[in-house]
Amino acid sequence: MHAFRTHTCADLRASDVGSNVRLSGWIHRKRDHGGVLFVDLRDHYGLTQIVCDADSPALPILDSLRVESVVTIDGEVKARAEGTTNAKLPTGDIEVFARTVEIQSKADELPMPVAGEQDYPEEIRLKYRYLDLRRDRLHANIMLRSKVIASIRRRMIDQGFTEFQTPILTASSPEGARDYLVPSRVHPGKFYALPQAPQMFKQLLMVAGFDRYFQIAPCFRDEDARADRSPGEFYQLDFEMSFVTQDDVFNAIEPVLSGVFAEFAGGNYVTPAGEFPRIPYKEAMLKYGSDKPDLRNPLIVHDVGEHFAGSGFGLFAGMVEKGMVVRAVAAPATAEKSRKFFDEMNDWARQEGFAGLGYATSKGGEWGGPIAKNHGAEGMDRIAEQMGIGPDDGIFFAAGPEAQAARLAGLARTRVAEQLGLIEQGAFRFCWIVDFPMFEYDEDAKKVDFSHNPFSMPQGGMEALETKDPLDILAWQYDIVCNGVELSSGAIRNHRPDIMYKAFEIAGYSREDVDTSFPGMIGAFKYGAPPHGGSAPGIDRIVMLLANEPNIREVILFPMNQRAEDLMMNAPAPVTMKQLRELSIRVVADSEPEAN
Amino acid sequence: MHAFRTHTCADLRASDVGSNVRLSGWIHRKRDHGGVLFVDLRDHYGLTQIVCDADSPALPILDSLRVESVVTIDGEVKARAEGTTNAKLPTGDIEVFARTVEIQSKADELPMPVAGEQDYPEEIRLKYRYLDLRRDRLHANIMLRSKVIASIRRRMIDQGFTEFQTPILTASSPEGARDYLVPSRVHPGKFYALPQAPQMFKQLLMVAGFDRYFQIAPCFRDEDARADRSPGEFYQLDFEMSFVTQDDVFNAIEPVLSGVFAEFAGGNYVTPAGEFPRIPYKEAMLKYGSDKPDLRNPLIVHDVGEHFAGSGFGLFAGMVEKGMVVRAVAAPATAEKSRKFFDEMNDWARQEGFAGLGYATSKGGEWGGPIAKNHGAEGMDRIAEQMGIGPDDGIFFAAGPEAQAARLAGLARTRVAEQLGLIEQGAFRFCWIVDFPMFEYDEDAKKVDFSHNPFSMPQGGMEALETKDPLDILAWQYDIVCNGVELSSGAIRNHRPDIMYKAFEIAGYSREDVDTSFPGMIGAFKYGAPPHGGSAPGIDRIVMLLANEPNIREVILFPMNQRAEDLMMNAPAPVTMKQLRELSIRVVADSEPEAN
Repeated sequence: MHAFRTHTCADLRASDVGSNVRLSGWIHRKRDHGGVLFVDLRDHYGLTQIVCDADSPALPILDSLRVESVVTIDGEVKARAEGTTNAKLPTGDIEVFARTVEIQSKADELPMPVAGEQDYPEEIRLKYRYLDLRRDRLHANIMLRSKVIASIRRRMIDQGFTEFQTPILTASSPEGARDYLVPSRVHPGKFYALPQAPQMFKQLLMVAGFDRYFQIAPCFRDEDARADRSPGEFYQLDFEMSFVTQDDVFNAIEPVLSGVFAEFAGGNYVTPAGEFPRIPYKEAMLKYGSDKPDLRNPLIVHDVGEHFAGSGFGLFAGMVEKGMVVRAVAAPATAEKSRKFFDEMNDWARQEGFAGLGYATSKGGEWGGPIAKNHGAEGMDRIAEQMGIGPDDGIFFAAGPEAQAARLAGLARTRVAEQLGLIEQGAFRFCWIVDFPMFEYDEDAKKVDFSHNPFSMPQGGMEALETKDPLDILAWQYDIVCNGVELSSGAIRNHRPDIMYKAFEIAGYSREDVDTSFPGMIGAFKYGAPPHGGSAPGIDRIVMLLANEPNIREVILFPMNQRAEDLMMNAPAPVTMKQLRELSIRVVADSEPEAN
Repeated sequence: MHAFRTHTCADLRASDVGSNVRLSGWIHRKRDHGGVLFVDLRDHYGLTQIVCDADSPALPILDSLRVESVVTIDGEVKARAEGTTNAKLPTGDIEVFARTVEIQSKADELPMPVAGEQDYPEEIRLKYRYLDLRRDRLHANIMLRSKVIASIRRRMIDQGFTEFQTPILTASSPEGARDYLVPSRVHPGKFYALPQAPQMFKQLLMVAGFDRYFQIAPCFRDEDARADRSPGEFYQLDFEMSFVTQDDVFNAIEPVLSGVFAEFAGGNYVTPAGEFPRIPYKEAMLKYGSDKPDLRNPLIVHDVGEHFAGSGFGLFAGMVEKGMVVRAVAAPATAEKSRKFFDEMNDWARQEGFAGLGYATSKGGEWGGPIAKNHGAEGMDRIAEQMGIGPDDGIFFAAGPEAQAARLAGLARTRVAEQLGLIEQGAFRFCWIVDFPMFEYDEDAKKVDFSHNPFSMPQGGMEALETKDPLDILAWQYDIVCNGVELSSGAIRNHRPDIMYKAFEIAGYSREDVDTSFPGMIGAFKYGAPPHGGSAPGIDRIVMLLANEPNIREVILFPMNQRAEDLMMNAPAPVTMKQLRELSIRVVADSEPEAN
């Protein structure tokens, strides 16, 4: 017989009744029923009920052990008595009558319990993460994460991608977020940086002649924590392809994302591959007030400014005259909602820093509220007609400068839908946001600058740069969004030094600026570079969506806390003078004046 | 038609003759045959021959481009003329007559050529790694590496393992090699360390109740480079299992290693799973003079000291009397070898720092050489009988203190086999080295200390520690060796604090020493820890073996040079004062006196 187990704690069934078995695991729960001891024995795979009666030599031993001790039980499988079977448990038809028990590890009193679903303070949970991880939900989340990643890998390989490892000790990049630095021992005064993303490397891989790269890539940014961003490290499905158009990128990755979501969505709706809507940036900002639209929300923002031009409602009429906009969001089936519902939305908008959120109520086609009063029923009917809404649907209005009004309308769209319970549950709705503008006018600097990524290929290439108004030029740049969560940005890259120099010239940078700032990339592109593009969906966010967890720490095995500390391993920590000396650095106290 | 290609450069066959196609790739080679231009167009997948005759508008453009420029070719597939087909090339039956060409990227003059197999200085190769990677051999090595890793992952998952990501920003460990440190911005004066291996994390995963963990894990050691060790980072197949004995570990990993080697060994012999020899450490040191024996070498070291006890050969007799040993290695079929062959072996041993390597020659059973002369033919025959060698086999003798003689015999075993061409070619022969001693006597400190890993479980557990001579206690510790290369160390871990304290006590450490030095692990083991064990075969070494590359940089995508520099990305590099200030550190010049 095996030293530790003949079966896992999830294996035994009614057909095993009569077998002599050996099980090992943790004592999950103990219940004493008048001289008969019931123990739920738990391992990675499941639970099995162990029974000790007064005759069993195992009883006093099990009786004396604390929960979470690890034991090996020898015993016989018996059918549970009628009425005591547990249909929720795969092993619920049987129990194991313990003959002997071997103690593998005695547990001290626990700082937090494992059985049950009580909430515990995060400090305790992170310090004793190995206990927290024994709990059902976290164990399931982490297993889900592993399965999602394995599924992504399989699907990427099936799509003809190859996984490569890019360096983790690399160069500090002048762009982007803050780098983590690693002092070099061999080269005093010099530092490695941990990669914020393998962007340069994946592009160099394409220049090196590899065709379809991917990597479940660890990325490092020294930024403060947020609910959806862990301090320190995070993982992305980094990928890049050569000789492709934007369509090719979409066609390659949609089956992977749709496939992996469908695999773990438990039967819920997932946008099928090939059917991801492609929404131009401009349209997204209008219809959803956001470039991260949640398509589970049926509400659409409408531009209704023209209705107010020269209308009786002087406030809106004046704004429209000044070039501002009025955006409207329906509040469906709100005829019976109290005034309070509408007023509270207005209050909320003010708390968010906006001037306010106007509204009109409607009950059986009867308009109410100040805007309707001023604008008149006929005008309101025309707005309702444009919006395609019914006689019991109210309307919220966001008015102001375009960017601001669009943002408020987008937030209101979400809030109204949440309050009215309109958000489709369980579904995963993907879309692409495409056609981002290449340049924007920087009001502060009074000049044209790149609006997103300077390294994307402008649509129309060199000709567009040479002939079009820069603010009209679009980029081959795209975001993947699922349920309002941006999973990644991506682009067809600019692989042509001549087009790169021209694009930077438009943004006010000289050829020398480019050569100095990005020598590696520009240098490599001069020895024959293929057209290429890719993206990098965030792994942690994908798992958060699938696990329905709002906090990223619930889907990471050993996360740091919000102060970027690993409470379990006690990191970061002081180091020895010898270590600092080897690295030719010293720590500078806050108050200490700096020599150079 | 697709913007860049209808086919890859490896796709077209005789059956495509007559098709109009579009191909994209790099200009690999150009040959001008009197007004007709031949271009080998290369992409990730292969090569296709492009033909331009004088009529084609593509000719002047292709003619003007340097090799390694990237182009898109439109043309017609034609059968090659008889006698000009190339059976070595999958596309060798056809060529594409170019109608038009679009330039995707013009190449400047190259710092190193891509076509051909010339050797180039490593500095150039690493600085222009994206060109070096376009070359056949390196491209193939890197693809092999990716395929090996994908195969390992698949096989581990098939064995019931789950992959988890452990943290990369973690705590400095007091043991082992030198850490890479990362200064914390949020906690001035404190540092993260990059993991030398996820050892602690994988054991904590077992304590957390997960059962079979693996990870293709990046590991970081700030050590100087060697041929088989890259500075900076390397990868290992890290794995750990709960509720297992040593046998279970072997049974789980042998199919993975044997399977992945067989998959990529090109039909060469690979030790089958279930048949990896298990060689006790003591036996390995005797028979192979090494704990990393190359089993492709048929020679075995014999202990022949007893033959010399009180014999006519005073030197050896005296040594044996003093407790030293004499080890013998056969030199098969050396009857016709000159005296020089034997003398040069002796010279080599002296160069290696040994006193010398004695020998006896034999031709048709006729002994020669000084040892045979002194020891006598009859005595020599008895040695030959023990060694099981024939009448034309010579013998080399390594005599001295046991450790030294064993080492020399091991080196001689290798050298003799190499010189005589006895090493089996192409085969991959695995073995386990088992039964490592738990403790050894430290001659310098005059005390018993751990001989390898203090965290391994002693064979016999607490009872052995309490009752046996420490120097007789073996550990559940094992190495995997292939062709003389150690792929990894592993162990069944000591998961019991009581046994841990006792083992450290034997090595002279107090309970407080243990609690202070390893608080995380000891602490976790107090809340219920399962018996567990694992290992961590080196990925880079596996790929080196399969690619038959002696230098690790040939199997890594973007390696650093031996001075731990990334010449392509220019890392490490100076950083700004602002960055240092944010991290509360400064650089200390060599000459600068330190304040504390």
